[in-house]
Amino acid sequence: MTITERISALRSTMQQNDLDAYIIPSSDPHQSEYVAPHWEARSWLSGFTGSAGILVITMEHAGLWTDSRYFIQAETQLKGTPVVLHQQGPARGPEHLEWLGKQLPEGATVGIDGMLFSLSQNRTLVKMLHQYKLELEIQHDLLPAIWADRPPLPTEAIFEIANKFTGMSRADKLTQIRAKMTDQQTSHYLISALDEIAWTFNLRGRDIDFNPVFVAYAVIEATHAILFVDAKKINSELSDQLKADGIFVKAYDTVTTYLSALTADQPLLVDKATTSIGLYQHLNKKSIKESSSIVSVLKGIKNPTEIKNIRQAMRYDGVALTRLYRSLEKTLSAGETITEAELADQLASFRSEQPGYYGESFPAIVGYQANGAIVHYRPEHGTSATIHPKGLLLLDSGGQYHSGTTDITRTTALGPVTADQRYHYTLVLKGHIGVAALHFPEGTKGYQVDTLARQALWNAHLDYGHGTGHGVGFFLNVHEGPQSISSSAGRGSVALEVGMLTSNEPGFYRPDEYGIRIENLVLTAEAGSSDFGDFLKFDTVTLFPIDLSLVDKSLLTTTEIQWLNTYHKLVFEELSPLLEPAEVVWLKDKCKIFD
Amino acid sequence: MTITERISALRSTMQQNDLDAYIIPSSDPHQSEYVAPHWEARSWLSGFTGSAGILVITMEHAGLWTDSRYFIQAETQLKGTPVVLHQQGPARGPEHLEWLGKQLPEGATVGIDGMLFSLSQNRTLVKMLHQYKLELEIQHDLLPAIWADRPPLPTEAIFEIANKFTGMSRADKLTQIRAKMTDQQTSHYLISALDEIAWTFNLRGRDIDFNPVFVAYAVIEATHAILFVDAKKINSELSDQLKADGIFVKAYDTVTTYLSALTADQPLLVDKATTSIGLYQHLNKKSIKESSSIVSVLKGIKNPTEIKNIRQAMRYDGVALTRLYRSLEKTLSAGETITEAELADQLASFRSEQPGYYGESFPAIVGYQANGAIVHYRPEHGTSATIHPKGLLLLDSGGQYHSGTTDITRTTALGPVTADQRYHYTLVLKGHIGVAALHFPEGTKGYQVDTLARQALWNAHLDYGHGTGHGVGFFLNVHEGPQSISSSAGRGSVALEVGMLTSNEPGFYRPDEYGIRIENLVLTAEAGSSDFGDFLKFDTVTLFPIDLSLVDKSLLTTTEIQWLNTYHKLVFEELSPLLEPAEVVWLKDKCKIFD
Repeated sequence: MTITERISALRSTMQQNDLDAYIIPSSDPHQSEYVAPHWEARSWLSGFTGSAGILVITMEHAGLWTDSRYFIQAETQLKGTPVVLHQQGPARGPEHLEWLGKQLPEGATVGIDGMLFSLSQNRTLVKMLHQYKLELEIQHDLLPAIWADRPPLPTEAIFEIANKFTGMSRADKLTQIRAKMTDQQTSHYLISALDEIAWTFNLRGRDIDFNPVFVAYAVIEATHAILFVDAKKINSELSDQLKADGIFVKAYDTVTTYLSALTADQPLLVDKATTSIGLYQHLNKKSIKESSSIVSVLKGIKNPTEIKNIRQAMRYDGVALTRLYRSLEKTLSAGETITEAELADQLASFRSEQPGYYGESFPAIVGYQANGAIVHYRPEHGTSATIHPKGLLLLDSGGQYHSGTTDITRTTALGPVTADQRYHYTLVLKGHIGVAALHFPEGTKGYQVDTLARQALWNAHLDYGHGTGHGVGFFLNVHEGPQSISSSAGRGSVALEVGMLTSNEPGFYRPDEYGIRIENLVLTAEAGSSDFGDFLKFDTVTLFPIDLSLVDKSLLTTTEIQWLNTYHKLVFEELSPLLEPAEVVWLKDKCKIFD
Repeated sequence: MTITERISALRSTMQQNDLDAYIIPSSDPHQSEYVAPHWEARSWLSGFTGSAGILVITMEHAGLWTDSRYFIQAETQLKGTPVVLHQQGPARGPEHLEWLGKQLPEGATVGIDGMLFSLSQNRTLVKMLHQYKLELEIQHDLLPAIWADRPPLPTEAIFEIANKFTGMSRADKLTQIRAKMTDQQTSHYLISALDEIAWTFNLRGRDIDFNPVFVAYAVIEATHAILFVDAKKINSELSDQLKADGIFVKAYDTVTTYLSALTADQPLLVDKATTSIGLYQHLNKKSIKESSSIVSVLKGIKNPTEIKNIRQAMRYDGVALTRLYRSLEKTLSAGETITEAELADQLASFRSEQPGYYGESFPAIVGYQANGAIVHYRPEHGTSATIHPKGLLLLDSGGQYHSGTTDITRTTALGPVTADQRYHYTLVLKGHIGVAALHFPEGTKGYQVDTLARQALWNAHLDYGHGTGHGVGFFLNVHEGPQSISSSAGRGSVALEVGMLTSNEPGFYRPDEYGIRIENLVLTAEAGSSDFGDFLKFDTVTLFPIDLSLVDKSLLTTTEIQWLNTYHKLVFEELSPLLEPAEVVWLKDKCKIFD
């Protein structure tokens, strides 16, 4: 079936169901950012594989809305299909709901699969569509009727992660969660988000590429907990261990029946942001207490054991990167070349030699020259660019280790550097250090930090079209909340608390020429108290040198140079004991004092 | 009557009305920040005269809630009264509604005078009190029963301000407003805010100290407008001119009758933030359309004539300040002294010699040494400190000119400077320049700018307890919206648009020792376009040197030093043509190149 045929089939089904429009988001019933193939309907229907995008089908039009990270990718992937790209962002065209409001006549009906929209999203949807006098039908999963070869639900085995990694047993986590449930006067708590379930039970899975989670729902009650999951994924030994902790397994699809039987005296806490409206509809409204997620907040603050492990994972990652970049230098100076996709494989291979390695935390972005300007570029064998000893290479990658999740971006010069490249790189670096070196009062929120990453670029009338930082899980999803360093007061509304792990990744992109991004992970830490209260700081935990050959030192302040030198001293001290002598020599040179 | 007797009288009235608590805010029926004496009930009942504070009276307790700007003032003024200070702010005690929730039994009744609370405030009030199962009664103005010598409503004459100052006739302003009314499909628009009424009709008054406004309501209709105001305040000539523009005068207290007669086919736009719940209650709900203020947005953006005039007012102000500081230097070096209150008078006197001077824009804060640490200190004759040739002097003042409103703070060394003073001053200056020199993309909001003013202080574990910038009116209120540079996503939620006039005033306060604040007004201006969109910048329009003897140059970056030198060059060029030769010599020295 071609994309055209698929959309045509969908339209027939829409007509049978009296729908004038159908919205297909990127998510699954758990509001995951990345989904199992079973839920990749948007990509199946449009050809666009980016992580963020909304497909809207009417009888006359097929439109895909996505943000600036994906403009280039979407244009490429939609070519030859009937799907039209609608760019999201300030001063672009209308958002999809506004567009629908303008296109459809009053009284028209818009359909969705309610399992793919959260309570909060549904409310926005209802409110917006109401404004345009459009109806919303949320009971329609049209895909089964047309998607013959739809991949089945994943069946990969679930495994445990030891307390020496997590720092807290699942029993202790349940105790902590139940204390918060008591505070909120609730006896039942539904967890829909897959990373929250994995964290709570110290379990991991392989259902979604790069995200070590498994498809499930969980309900925590006062004395026991229920995991709604395909029982075949849990071996008998694990099942026994779970039972010993008061955790019982029931079939995934029985969650609705189970929850809908709750009565008014069995209050059920649901998280508005991750509970689907499809599930919510079946529940007893008298039982439901809406709130934000308990687990998201607990999980966001890493405990001392996790922090110790994260620091170890960063050393492993730094060693793998040292080997990769040293090997690349050798390859190029020997007059040989390598493709972006080959380099990505080589990096995965170096990481895989490290203790406790589990896999990549996301598909590595190896963006050579112009490809570096494509924010979420993913090199493929056969089409990816060949790397030569010239120009800039942007490499954004991460590993999953039992001791933690990493995410690092470096931009390096492979040959002579132009004045513009050096200027832009230095501005990005100034932004990176502005955040990395900041001390701030307790209570400071993500949106208060974002501008420090942009100030130097803004003053040169430049900017970047993505956020500055996202939360990172512990051997879990590379994008996790609740915090974020963002220019949006909404996304950046959470205070940056001690123990949170966040990325610091300003960038600059010159389309068709090059991309620059410098990303480290930072842990929020205590910085001391004064008459003005308790102050916090960011401890940079990622360990790999920043390319000094791209830095215009005359643009840096003394403080910025000091930060660089202190960072490189730390990188060398932490990594050199794990390296071969020749590698130590190589690293020493990269970490040289900049003065 | 003593404060104790007044509170006791209020409690008797509360009992007669079955109220368990009564809340007295700082505002008037127009949500003014500063009010006419008639509405100074909070100050009459508690003795606290600060601009912000909420008094809560129960049968057992009298509490005043105010923020950190006023802690010291409130402590002093509440001494000897039964009123207890409750400090507002992070990590302080509960806010007043939370406190009421804890103190009062379920079912208790809280009373307010609905005329003093906006629609938005009332909703928050209802929501919060509902949470604690408390009732709200909004029909109670208890003051008339107990306040025998309450000042009457003000009766000062209203006067016109010429188009050469405002840059736009009232007829043109009404046309502009009516276009926005048409966009919002409304035929009637109620204006409650006094500065908005003054701006709309190019009228000014003397009803509130320092704010050239008059007590009134206005309703704009499609073909005419009505000013609800005491007719005695408008002479017949002005009355005729208003009539010629289709503006008719009706008595102030007839606004309720007038508005409540509107029918469903006469939609009335009301601003949630400034329309009182007391007034709203009397209106036909079928007629009302709630929205934000049309005038606030129009008024916030200064037109080219206003901008030209503002620049002129800044020159006048700079000349007055030059004369003041030069005179102070002479006084001190002659071995004489002067009190803070005398210095404030002298400044007003120098300003009054300038063209178009009308009065002060707020009571000058002349804070010598420890008094500088009291953020809203106001020196009084008889008690104010005597200034000697040592220590720091903080002077925050402003003038009202027909050509604009000014607001400037300078902190100056009157003798030898300690290392701490120089360090703190330099950190504040770095924050000031961080904002002043920023270029930013169109659409940037106030909350995105605030941290730049605090970064240097935060990195030294210091901070200040007030916002960074407020909007300023044109020959109107010194505090006006809609924009603000604030760490709060709410208060700072408005984008900084071309033509907005905003203060830039970071500070640092060491209690009992000294206060530092450096404040200039900045106009948002176009900075040019790039591939990344349109960029804006701040043009600093305030003209007076910054005390270099307090600056530790080793802490400044090259860019910061350049900003200082460029600013001082501008100050000298703009002011020197208006000065006497000896004054030019003095200013030349203060504006010397810092290298």
